[in-house]
Amino acid sequence: MSSTPLFTPFTGESTGDPLLFETYKPKIKAYRDALAAGILDEYKLPEEFVPRLSGADVRQIPKKVLTSAEYEITESSGTALAKKLATGELKAVEVFKAFAKRATIAHQLTNCAMQLFTAEGLQRAQDLDEYFTRTGKTVGPLHGLPVSLKEHYNYKGKVTHAGYAVWTDRVTDNWALSVKLLLDAGAVFYIRTTEPQSLMHLCSKNNITGCAKNPANTSLTTGGSSSGEGALAGMKGSVFGLGSDIGGSIRCPAGFCGAWGFRPTQKRLSMRNVASACTGMQEGVCCVLGPLAHCADDVDLFMSSIIGGEPWKNDATVIPLPWRKVSEPSIKDLTIAVCYDDGVVKPTTPIVRGLRVAADKLKNAGATVVEWNPIEVKKLVATCGSMYNADSGADQLSVLKASGEPLAELTKVALSFGCGTKGVSAADYEKLALTRDIYRDKYQDVMNEKGINFILSPVYVSVAAKPETVHYWGYTSLWNILDLPNMVFPTGLECDPALDIPDKKYTPRSDVEAYEYALYDDAENFKGAPIGLQLTGRRWFDEELVKASKVVQEVIEK
Amino acid sequence: MSSTPLFTPFTGESTGDPLLFETYKPKIKAYRDALAAGILDEYKLPEEFVPRLSGADVRQIPKKVLTSAEYEITESSGTALAKKLATGELKAVEVFKAFAKRATIAHQLTNCAMQLFTAEGLQRAQDLDEYFTRTGKTVGPLHGLPVSLKEHYNYKGKVTHAGYAVWTDRVTDNWALSVKLLLDAGAVFYIRTTEPQSLMHLCSKNNITGCAKNPANTSLTTGGSSSGEGALAGMKGSVFGLGSDIGGSIRCPAGFCGAWGFRPTQKRLSMRNVASACTGMQEGVCCVLGPLAHCADDVDLFMSSIIGGEPWKNDATVIPLPWRKVSEPSIKDLTIAVCYDDGVVKPTTPIVRGLRVAADKLKNAGATVVEWNPIEVKKLVATCGSMYNADSGADQLSVLKASGEPLAELTKVALSFGCGTKGVSAADYEKLALTRDIYRDKYQDVMNEKGINFILSPVYVSVAAKPETVHYWGYTSLWNILDLPNMVFPTGLECDPALDIPDKKYTPRSDVEAYEYALYDDAENFKGAPIGLQLTGRRWFDEELVKASKVVQEVIEK
Repeated sequence: MSSTPLFTPFTGESTGDPLLFETYKPKIKAYRDALAAGILDEYKLPEEFVPRLSGADVRQIPKKVLTSAEYEITESSGTALAKKLATGELKAVEVFKAFAKRATIAHQLTNCAMQLFTAEGLQRAQDLDEYFTRTGKTVGPLHGLPVSLKEHYNYKGKVTHAGYAVWTDRVTDNWALSVKLLLDAGAVFYIRTTEPQSLMHLCSKNNITGCAKNPANTSLTTGGSSSGEGALAGMKGSVFGLGSDIGGSIRCPAGFCGAWGFRPTQKRLSMRNVASACTGMQEGVCCVLGPLAHCADDVDLFMSSIIGGEPWKNDATVIPLPWRKVSEPSIKDLTIAVCYDDGVVKPTTPIVRGLRVAADKLKNAGATVVEWNPIEVKKLVATCGSMYNADSGADQLSVLKASGEPLAELTKVALSFGCGTKGVSAADYEKLALTRDIYRDKYQDVMNEKGINFILSPVYVSVAAKPETVHYWGYTSLWNILDLPNMVFPTGLECDPALDIPDKKYTPRSDVEAYEYALYDDAENFKGAPIGLQLTGRRWFDEELVKASKVVQEVIEK
Repeated sequence: MSSTPLFTPFTGESTGDPLLFETYKPKIKAYRDALAAGILDEYKLPEEFVPRLSGADVRQIPKKVLTSAEYEITESSGTALAKKLATGELKAVEVFKAFAKRATIAHQLTNCAMQLFTAEGLQRAQDLDEYFTRTGKTVGPLHGLPVSLKEHYNYKGKVTHAGYAVWTDRVTDNWALSVKLLLDAGAVFYIRTTEPQSLMHLCSKNNITGCAKNPANTSLTTGGSSSGEGALAGMKGSVFGLGSDIGGSIRCPAGFCGAWGFRPTQKRLSMRNVASACTGMQEGVCCVLGPLAHCADDVDLFMSSIIGGEPWKNDATVIPLPWRKVSEPSIKDLTIAVCYDDGVVKPTTPIVRGLRVAADKLKNAGATVVEWNPIEVKKLVATCGSMYNADSGADQLSVLKASGEPLAELTKVALSFGCGTKGVSAADYEKLALTRDIYRDKYQDVMNEKGINFILSPVYVSVAAKPETVHYWGYTSLWNILDLPNMVFPTGLECDPALDIPDKKYTPRSDVEAYEYALYDDAENFKGAPIGLQLTGRRWFDEELVKASKVVQEVIEK
């Protein structure tokens, strides 16, 4: 089998079938009308707060609109709120109303929601308060916490379209198991968030409710595919949210919007009843669910609560690995390898600055900091891409054709990953899986030999990009195929045109690099975009990664 | 995708390339000469003990040839021996010599070995005794226990051919990780056992050292593909042995030869450096390693010792699930569903008798015994077969062609499983995997709804078959694709021509059934063949299965 390319250009039809698509427009309109109706009058953003120009930072607007009590609640961690809800110091209804308001404001500024159902959330919060009053107990560890959900998990009784126009009126009558476990733990639902067509963009373009905007700079992408989750997290419109990630879809939006995002090792959370175009089980590189949040402690709370629901009991794919309690490491005990360049696409100047600042601070705090030498990244990213498209993209194309919707630019890009629409035979698929396994062992062997605990690397080549431009996923998808857990966190730094001047002298090593590196054309275009970084740990040892990321981020942001 | 058939007849060349194969005969001869030289003079079986007729039960011969001390040692459990070795009551050398003798006798009667290296084992045992004398400690939980190994795990410095003539002189210079962990735990190695060409027969035919014989009735097959392990276990020539299983290869030989055989859930033991024809990673249905042994306690000792070596540290595929200590259940707390017929091939009369006796005894002992209704067995077995041959059998054919060796009958049968040499596209492979996952959940849902703890079922359609006749693997391979752990154990019953008269009136439901059911033609041909049964538990909950099988087998054999 000859070497897999990173991209095999998509040459299929992309305009769709306009006549057929016309017949779906009433359904799409009805869906959008329902979304608009989800903006309650009492949460309507006064006109004076709506930015007139693009490129705005809208993250400070909630403070101007919320009461100080609402603001204080929505600035609190989930861990702190859970404690106060458990003692009765806070009521679920007051917590909910604060977040519902902040989320609705966020939606009006960033278009982060695909569904808003505040009245249902309020009823749920009232039920929780009534339960607490009656029994003196909480229903579970997430009692009363407002939790956001990316749209594509089956939600009993609601439409789940997974970003495809053909399903804009498809009601799913069961729960995604992970959503049910959050519900059973006491979570309050009120918003389902924006994702792109095909679920395979690091961006948000779709033919249903349209793109979401990055709250740090509204001319930029939120990233994707948990696009709305990223925007909402940047706006603190929920305690945390449930995202999904097969190539970067939790981590990219988290990094682009200044939030935390955690990609667990596969098969720890249930994927049962998560909607997609897939008519088969592609398990070469597995999709996982995971949280976008505001701090490491809340990631811990999220994971321990959902895994505490023992998902393996109702999903034979999930491995019964309980969420272990581990202690925070001392920074002096950590050996962190820093990746400045994956050998395929060099990171841009703001990212390099972020890495250098991080490395210096970690060293000064007593960590052992070494340089990470990339290992066969191009081969692994290409292998990953071929696994995505192993079926020749047939499933994707089928669902897109069913409504005749036009293909977004990045959908075409996704269909060009690896083997593209050529697909592969099962024999070649098995060879791809063997390559993956060889390098899973290689990476572990190298980390063992060099005593490396964690790898610090970029989330993406650059800060948040312009909409519909990101092609190269390698800084995230490498870890998907290797299945090492990752935490993305904010450094507190953001793109500064004075410091982060594009390196126009750099000579790209390939066409792929030439395209991607040049997207960071003028620092002014990216002003204010958060600089996030990614910490990667050992396969299955997610708990240690979460605790280490807390310590690492504290050192970096100080 | 149309319904997958159980078999797609193999129409390729099977005579091999006789001229090319001729060039491999010297290597094969050298290999066989080395094996013959492994029979030490002091262990040579006196002529009067070699049966003159086929169809003999040779399991009582060791007692006539061993000293009473040697006999007592080799009749002891590993658990008992480990304790005595740990206190010094027994020395590793005396334990080793007893097993080396018994194994060498077993080999002379059943041809169960492919390599015999007794001198190396003796040196190892001496080293262990010296270590114990010097330190007062054991090297690990298996200190001094003689452990047999199926041939196809890489053994540092020795040839590993995996049953293929082309590799008869291929020295592997690394250890299979699982073998290394057994070694580190204190095991003594001295024998590597017979497997069939292709590793894909429930039998033992190969072009290197030839077939193994069932010690309970030497006209019958040992089963396979851990054929030599089965024969050796039936002869108690090792404490326990390491087998492998992708469709029945631990359990079939264990059941046919009257031993215990355990197939763990996948990815708990390491498959790193296990040899095969595979040039890719076929992970739709995974091969696993597991023990053949003489009692449940020894299976527990084996698993806790090997997993205690934390295989995940050196194999990124292994999940860090420690081997938990669980208590033996009370029989009264168990709900066991008995499978009398998988809906594809009805079991023969001795197996039905075994199931009925078992069900009655379990009921009388206080267990809740219900009937198991088979769920889509044909579909799942066919899906499993297509996963085996997803690559069109290309890997197998390539290695066989490399020496020009003739294809054994059952190699052709294996190449006809499912899609056969047509292979499948990656898209279809993904659909097969989804089918598998749907039924993994379905089986769990049904067991949950009905409160079923374990399923009791046949190991195979019948007792040990005649050599080279077994085509249908469904009673074992069903559990491979569903990946539920299984324990095969002896009932104490054996085929009795007076009781187990073939049912000649039965009307088969298919050609597959017609062929397989008719193999049990005349009970006299199968006289003395052990009746084994199989207990199946919940995915990942292997520990509970091992403990339950101890209790269940005790009730059945009493």
